[in-house]
Amino acid sequence: MPEISKRGVIMPASPIRKLVPLANKAKERGTKVYHLNIGQPDLQTPEVGLEAVRHIDRKILEYSPSEGILSLRKKLVSYYAKYNIETSIEDIIITTGGSEAVLFSFMACLDPGDEIIVPEPAYANYMAFAISAGAVIKTIPSTIEEGFALPSVEKFEALITERTKGILICNPNNPTGYLYTQKEMNQIRDMVKKYNLFLFSDEVYREFCYTGAPYISAFHLEGIEKNVILIDSMSKRYSECGIRVGALITKNKDVQAAVMKFCQARLSPPLLGQICAEASIDAPDEYLLDTYNEYVERRKFLIDGINRIPGCYSPIPMGAFYTVAKLPVDDADKFCAWCLEEFSYEGQTIFMAPASGFYMTPGLGRNQVRIAYVLKKEDLANALIVLRKALEAYPGRVTDTCED
Amino acid sequence: MPEISKRGVIMPASPIRKLVPLANKAKERGTKVYHLNIGQPDLQTPEVGLEAVRHIDRKILEYSPSEGILSLRKKLVSYYAKYNIETSIEDIIITTGGSEAVLFSFMACLDPGDEIIVPEPAYANYMAFAISAGAVIKTIPSTIEEGFALPSVEKFEALITERTKGILICNPNNPTGYLYTQKEMNQIRDMVKKYNLFLFSDEVYREFCYTGAPYISAFHLEGIEKNVILIDSMSKRYSECGIRVGALITKNKDVQAAVMKFCQARLSPPLLGQICAEASIDAPDEYLLDTYNEYVERRKFLIDGINRIPGCYSPIPMGAFYTVAKLPVDDADKFCAWCLEEFSYEGQTIFMAPASGFYMTPGLGRNQVRIAYVLKKEDLANALIVLRKALEAYPGRVTDTCED
Repeated sequence: MPEISKRGVIMPASPIRKLVPLANKAKERGTKVYHLNIGQPDLQTPEVGLEAVRHIDRKILEYSPSEGILSLRKKLVSYYAKYNIETSIEDIIITTGGSEAVLFSFMACLDPGDEIIVPEPAYANYMAFAISAGAVIKTIPSTIEEGFALPSVEKFEALITERTKGILICNPNNPTGYLYTQKEMNQIRDMVKKYNLFLFSDEVYREFCYTGAPYISAFHLEGIEKNVILIDSMSKRYSECGIRVGALITKNKDVQAAVMKFCQARLSPPLLGQICAEASIDAPDEYLLDTYNEYVERRKFLIDGINRIPGCYSPIPMGAFYTVAKLPVDDADKFCAWCLEEFSYEGQTIFMAPASGFYMTPGLGRNQVRIAYVLKKEDLANALIVLRKALEAYPGRVTDTCED
Repeated sequence: MPEISKRGVIMPASPIRKLVPLANKAKERGTKVYHLNIGQPDLQTPEVGLEAVRHIDRKILEYSPSEGILSLRKKLVSYYAKYNIETSIEDIIITTGGSEAVLFSFMACLDPGDEIIVPEPAYANYMAFAISAGAVIKTIPSTIEEGFALPSVEKFEALITERTKGILICNPNNPTGYLYTQKEMNQIRDMVKKYNLFLFSDEVYREFCYTGAPYISAFHLEGIEKNVILIDSMSKRYSECGIRVGALITKNKDVQAAVMKFCQARLSPPLLGQICAEASIDAPDEYLLDTYNEYVERRKFLIDGINRIPGCYSPIPMGAFYTVAKLPVDDADKFCAWCLEEFSYEGQTIFMAPASGFYMTPGLGRNQVRIAYVLKKEDLANALIVLRKALEAYPGRVTDTCED
């Protein structure tokens, strides 16, 4: 047999994925599994989005334009304007989910061997897309003790080499829920300017900022307008992850032209998803307000609940719908697997994402998990009880975590 | 500004794409443009597919599994069995269009610098996906004089180096409509075996074989079952190019595992498209029969019409819905642009794809165009009249083409 590619070998399989078969087996045994592991909200897709799909009057489901349907791109111009992000339709390229926006921005901006700097923990698939592009991600740890604030400028500068082409941030952050402050965003802006870098900014959770602190988009930073590549997605704000519609926004004409070549090669983003997305933007204000209020409640309930469990600690996430929490365990990978394989409480167990999958520095986050609060409060309540009971029963429990 | 990637620069912009603005301007002038340039059929999507979309009863458009919806994969097992392609659900991975199947097969099998051999003319986007993966496509010209038959084994062997990892074919062929014979497929099989290569086989046009000659799938070749990666798509057979649903089929477990990592990174293929695709497979037999008969008619009509125009020649395509024809012109790029920019006949003009975009060897196909017979007969009739009139008026007409 011919051998597969090296990149196919080194491509990391996510620790979450490894646990999926264990979760499936638990379900087969009749155990109720609470999914805290994935950013798939249980909230409904806006009715207007579903209705648009149900009322399709086309006879042929044709290719849409490679850059996306014009009317959708126009609506997004107005949508971003509400966040004081000034764009024109030329700046907005519709992608097959935010995932493709990340991949195409890397493909268009990074050559094999080029480096980007990313604070960790970070969304694991950035690494996968970097490997696809042959690019190298260098990470700087942020710490739970500092609430996952931006690492110091000195730590960034220590990593900058001739091959450094960009910085990547996710704001509000997946997995930590951290929201970068104006001061931090200015620090990023200054580095981007000083070292002539791209700024890849994944802002798919902008609707979900809970503390009154302002959401600072990369496009709000002055003087680096042409360095910014904004990654967006409809998935999270309208609970329609399955439609696979995202966007790549840049004012850099060279990047636009290069990205468009990759877009043309794959012909078009999904037509049906774009029809749903365009209609979803017209969801009544109450839709997003209800969604927001629901997450506010869940966040309060979950974080409070975690911090009441002996030995557990979660900072208070300022945005998105995740938190990274510290647990009194020897190894969160083992604990998460154990919960699915060996534990249940009153016929229930929990599926959490070991934080190790979000760190690229080996050994970091060993006693941390990412918990997504995408379930309704009653389910979160049960999940918290299961977590407490699981920690009481877990043979690898340790006692000194809080001092870590 | 930081510079874009080298691959973003070298990525070829298709000659067809360059003509799109000219076609738009012609339309703005009120000229009717016959689109012979793209594989977007004008036939209806199966009603059962559209109905499935219209009757979606989901409340949340969630992520589907990364490998695709199980029930769709199961249906595809039965579908392939009708073509004597024996697969199991594990062998079938649903992709975002055939495009993603090509990209992921390259990503999983080829490292930067690895080479694959492709007969040309070839679908232009293979090159784009190879550049994305850092792989190198080496081409062997097939000729219009030989009806675009497979080049000789010697020509393949002359290109094989230590870096050669695979052969790629499209069968039935886009752009030529050629259908590889049993003898040719056996030659490919023997090379694949002898040199331990992958065989990437794009077979999205299998429904469209017109001459009674058998369709030989790469999976029909004995002894190379684990070398084959079959690329498939729903787009063409159900006239639903916009849903972005394709498939990658391989029995090679290592390739499956590597491809799955790329699939997991992009989370899932489009949910709505998969719902449409699954239902479309249940289209009544008459749907595909009517489609088939329609293409048979159009093919006969188009090829006959082309060959009646002085100085023009098209071989008789055995499959797909394209032909590559030779025209009595100095430069088909210029001629195609001229048709859109400067010519019209009774308020109509034609948009054809210059064949240069399908050849990687510079200079080849200079007097050839690809014509897609995706329009109804009346439109093809008018397009043929326009072509004849355009050739009469074109200043760059030459007379000796038939002897080329």
